[in-house]
Amino acid sequence: MQRPATGAGVKLAALAQWAGVELRGDPELHVDRVATLESAGSGAVSFFANPRYGRQLAATRATAVIVAPDALDACPVAALVTPNPYLVFARVTRYFNPEPSPQPGVHPSACVADGAELGEGVAIAARAVIEPGARLGARVCVGAGAYIGADAVVGADSRIAPNAVVGARARLGERVILHSGVVIGADGFGFASDGECWEKVPQIGSVQIGNDVEVGANTAIDRGALGDTVIEDGVKLDNLIQVGHNARIGAHTVVAACTAIAGSTSIGRGCMIAGAVAIAGHLSIADGVTVTGMTTVSRSIAQKGVYSGGTQMAENAVWRKSAVRFNQLDDMFRRLRRLEQELAALKGPTDQE
Amino acid sequence: MQRPATGAGVKLAALAQWAGVELRGDPELHVDRVATLESAGSGAVSFFANPRYGRQLAATRATAVIVAPDALDACPVAALVTPNPYLVFARVTRYFNPEPSPQPGVHPSACVADGAELGEGVAIAARAVIEPGARLGARVCVGAGAYIGADAVVGADSRIAPNAVVGARARLGERVILHSGVVIGADGFGFASDGECWEKVPQIGSVQIGNDVEVGANTAIDRGALGDTVIEDGVKLDNLIQVGHNARIGAHTVVAACTAIAGSTSIGRGCMIAGAVAIAGHLSIADGVTVTGMTTVSRSIAQKGVYSGGTQMAENAVWRKSAVRFNQLDDMFRRLRRLEQELAALKGPTDQE
Amino acid sequence: MQRPATGAGVKLAALAQWAGVELRGDPELHVDRVATLESAGSGAVSFFANPRYGRQLAATRATAVIVAPDALDACPVAALVTPNPYLVFARVTRYFNPEPSPQPGVHPSACVADGAELGEGVAIAARAVIEPGARLGARVCVGAGAYIGADAVVGADSRIAPNAVVGARARLGERVILHSGVVIGADGFGFASDGECWEKVPQIGSVQIGNDVEVGANTAIDRGALGDTVIEDGVKLDNLIQVGHNARIGAHTVVAACTAIAGSTSIGRGCMIAGAVAIAGHLSIADGVTVTGMTTVSRSIAQKGVYSGGTQMAENAVWRKSAVRFNQLDDMFRRLRRLEQELAALKGPTDQE
Repeated sequence: MQRPATGAGVKLAALAQWAGVELRGDPELHVDRVATLESAGSGAVSFFANPRYGRQLAATRATAVIVAPDALDACPVAALVTPNPYLVFARVTRYFNPEPSPQPGVHPSACVADGAELGEGVAIAARAVIEPGARLGARVCVGAGAYIGADAVVGADSRIAPNAVVGARARLGERVILHSGVVIGADGFGFASDGECWEKVPQIGSVQIGNDVEVGANTAIDRGALGDTVIEDGVKLDNLIQVGHNARIGAHTVVAACTAIAGSTSIGRGCMIAGAVAIAGHLSIADGVTVTGMTTVSRSIAQKGVYSGGTQMAENAVWRKSAVRFNQLDDMFRRLRRLEQELAALKGPTDQE
Repeated sequence: MQRPATGAGVKLAALAQWAGVELRGDPELHVDRVATLESAGSGAVSFFANPRYGRQLAATRATAVIVAPDALDACPVAALVTPNPYLVFARVTRYFNPEPSPQPGVHPSACVADGAELGEGVAIAARAVIEPGARLGARVCVGAGAYIGADAVVGADSRIAPNAVVGARARLGERVILHSGVVIGADGFGFASDGECWEKVPQIGSVQIGNDVEVGANTAIDRGALGDTVIEDGVKLDNLIQVGHNARIGAHTVVAACTAIAGSTSIGRGCMIAGAVAIAGHLSIADGVTVTGMTTVSRSIAQKGVYSGGTQMAENAVWRKSAVRFNQLDDMFRRLRRLEQELAALKGPTDQE
Repeated sequence: MQRPATGAGVKLAALAQWAGVELRGDPELHVDRVATLESAGSGAVSFFANPRYGRQLAATRATAVIVAPDALDACPVAALVTPNPYLVFARVTRYFNPEPSPQPGVHPSACVADGAELGEGVAIAARAVIEPGARLGARVCVGAGAYIGADAVVGADSRIAPNAVVGARARLGERVILHSGVVIGADGFGFASDGECWEKVPQIGSVQIGNDVEVGANTAIDRGALGDTVIEDGVKLDNLIQVGHNARIGAHTVVAACTAIAGSTSIGRGCMIAGAVAIAGHLSIADGVTVTGMTTVSRSIAQKGVYSGGTQMAENAVWRKSAVRFNQLDDMFRRLRRLEQELAALKGPTDQE
């Protein structure tokens, strides 16, 4: 997919060809940006992927909409037709909004240690610190105030946002994105009790991160105690996530914000873990598992499927009663069983099936 | 409200006049600080707003206590009388502890790009980085190591704490406070699946923050995918909160720590969201809603009121049984209904009402 | 315990003597590192403390394993025998992996204010900022980009990781470890309502941290409103924890990741608080309490013991029904009670015990 030259915009025909999708509508129309169905005006390309926005599709003033074949009839304007409208929208958005490339070079206020290796086209922003032995691949961007520890490796085309931290000896693949406040490779939480006090267990492992991994703001991934914490290729982590020491997250798994993954737990490939989930340590979760929001995962999951926990919100007056009864559930169960027995006895032996 | 000159302290009469409240007691008494009812000694002003501290009011050695009219008889010392003691206490605390104003100017180790605009009296601390096109209003303070991205706008009298990050193009109102570790404007969590891998959806929106907003330590507010994430005037966010892309939080809403607000959700004005709450995406929450702690909000809330979820703590032995029974609840319900039917049949038709 | 000179390794006899444990096996064997039972090879010392790894013990290729007396017979290689294998393993790990000591001195790019006091052997890394009046004890290490506020005190041998923040006037004991992204002493979350808007209550207290405290990445400990937030000696806090203003955590208590502790709550000594727990404000929790993961603690706990809350994960189809029935629990309870009464009436007075 070669991106054609663009200036003030592009003709729909050229955009459709670039994106590899079918065009229904006037090929000469010009478009120059993306927008939501609701806010789009002339010149904008939008997309329709969620049926709940059907009314907005009908009313849109976009010049063109990216739609699936089954929504084509409902589209009141020019259509770019594809089985995966959201994916094509992602690409069209990138087409109109290419990632800005910082000027290669090292800002004079950055501290790059002797013995750090910088690949071709690396850009190191103001106040960044690169420790001895760190190796940065080609075109890596290190944001202002970010820190790359000793002997850490950052693969080509990775972007480390301002004030993110990559600990000593961590190894990041190519095209990795770390957002601000990310901390890779802090010590895992390991302490041995002497009966009263807790003595620190030195955390001597590291963190391995694959290619095409993105890590959201203020997420923490601890280094291993022995051996490494591993984030495989294509994993996407949202903000404020905890990944404990020696955890492993399989390729192309996504994890939403505020989820906690305790140490030594292994999550499979292609999983979808929602937000505010808590996963206990030393568990194994199969490939392709979905866990819905606010679930406590305290046992391993061997089968692909959708798993849930927690309760549903209610009005406080209702909830207060439910919460009281929750802690009486075993008593309720026993009373129920006794009733069944008593009723069976009352009905007599002839009633039994 | 003009603050009178103060030195070693102030007479109660002058303080009452400054605060606009009624004084009961000796107007000549000197006070010079605030303290809790329990720790207060001579010269201290305390307050009484929570009935559970009645015993501490009776025993206080404060020189004066800020009280509501109905607590006046219980106050053993001089009283500053107001319908809203906590609000007046806040102001009296500020009276004795004015916010320190850093020396205006740019620290020599800060990096202020050419083309950044600094208002009158701006103070930029050591190692702060201000990118090109950023505009800082009058008297803005930027703490050590903080980062203000390209074309970001920070309104007058705002304070950005050390190591906080304001992303490119974010727009902050006046008197905004960002605590350390805050990340404004990291990319939202948007990916389109190609069937196996996740492709990044460029996040091209920004973040708008109103006037008088305070954001707690290590809280993250993502930039919008298309359009902006919006935090309206007077919103107060505690620490370690996640605000997803394109969320909107209405004016004067408060959110306690560790709460997650997913993308495209809109929260009304004057809401109170407690801590560790998880709010799913694409929801709408009415004005004036209260959500209690640890609640999962997975549907929209159309009516003002108090909403809750989760369970109440119990001793582990009790909880283990309840937790097992929870996953048998539908079976219990069916058995209960069958019992009702059987009992009704047993009692015969004449028993029915 | 004097650490003997080491080079390429040490003889088992010397290691056993250093660690104060009994050796079963060839005293002349050389060991030079630690490893897990599974990954260990010749020269490695491993440990066995969790019965679930019995099969790995049987198959290990470690040169020696640290075991309890009752596991001695199951150990196929040389054994270092102790009642507390994990504790000895922690020490042996430290033996082979001594904490690297940064070169004392102040990096030329650090900003140390006039009037800051630096103890003997202090190491201040690149871009760190030390404000006026701060006092750093002997051998304190301040990482790159870390911030020590005005009049803060950091006790001897403490380590502040890159980009951590210690607020003004905070007081840290000796041997304290703060990981990256930690924020000590941001303002507590205190606001007084004027009916519509929230007015900030100045937070004029500080934070006191005892000796031997470790604080995980991106954890936030707010300063007190009046009086201090207190973390006693030996407390270990994991990543992404919230500690509200005026909370107190008793000595040697451990708290796992993503837990929220609201303001003015006091937790006893020697407690174990698991991850993703939410503890409401103004509570008191006794010494020696264990709280399991994802529990909401909304009342005080007066007795030592284990406390739990939340629900257990299930397949989504099961959970959906349970979640619906949860909000019908009080109705179920009433129907159950009515059935009991009706059945008792049906059985007649002679059936009653």
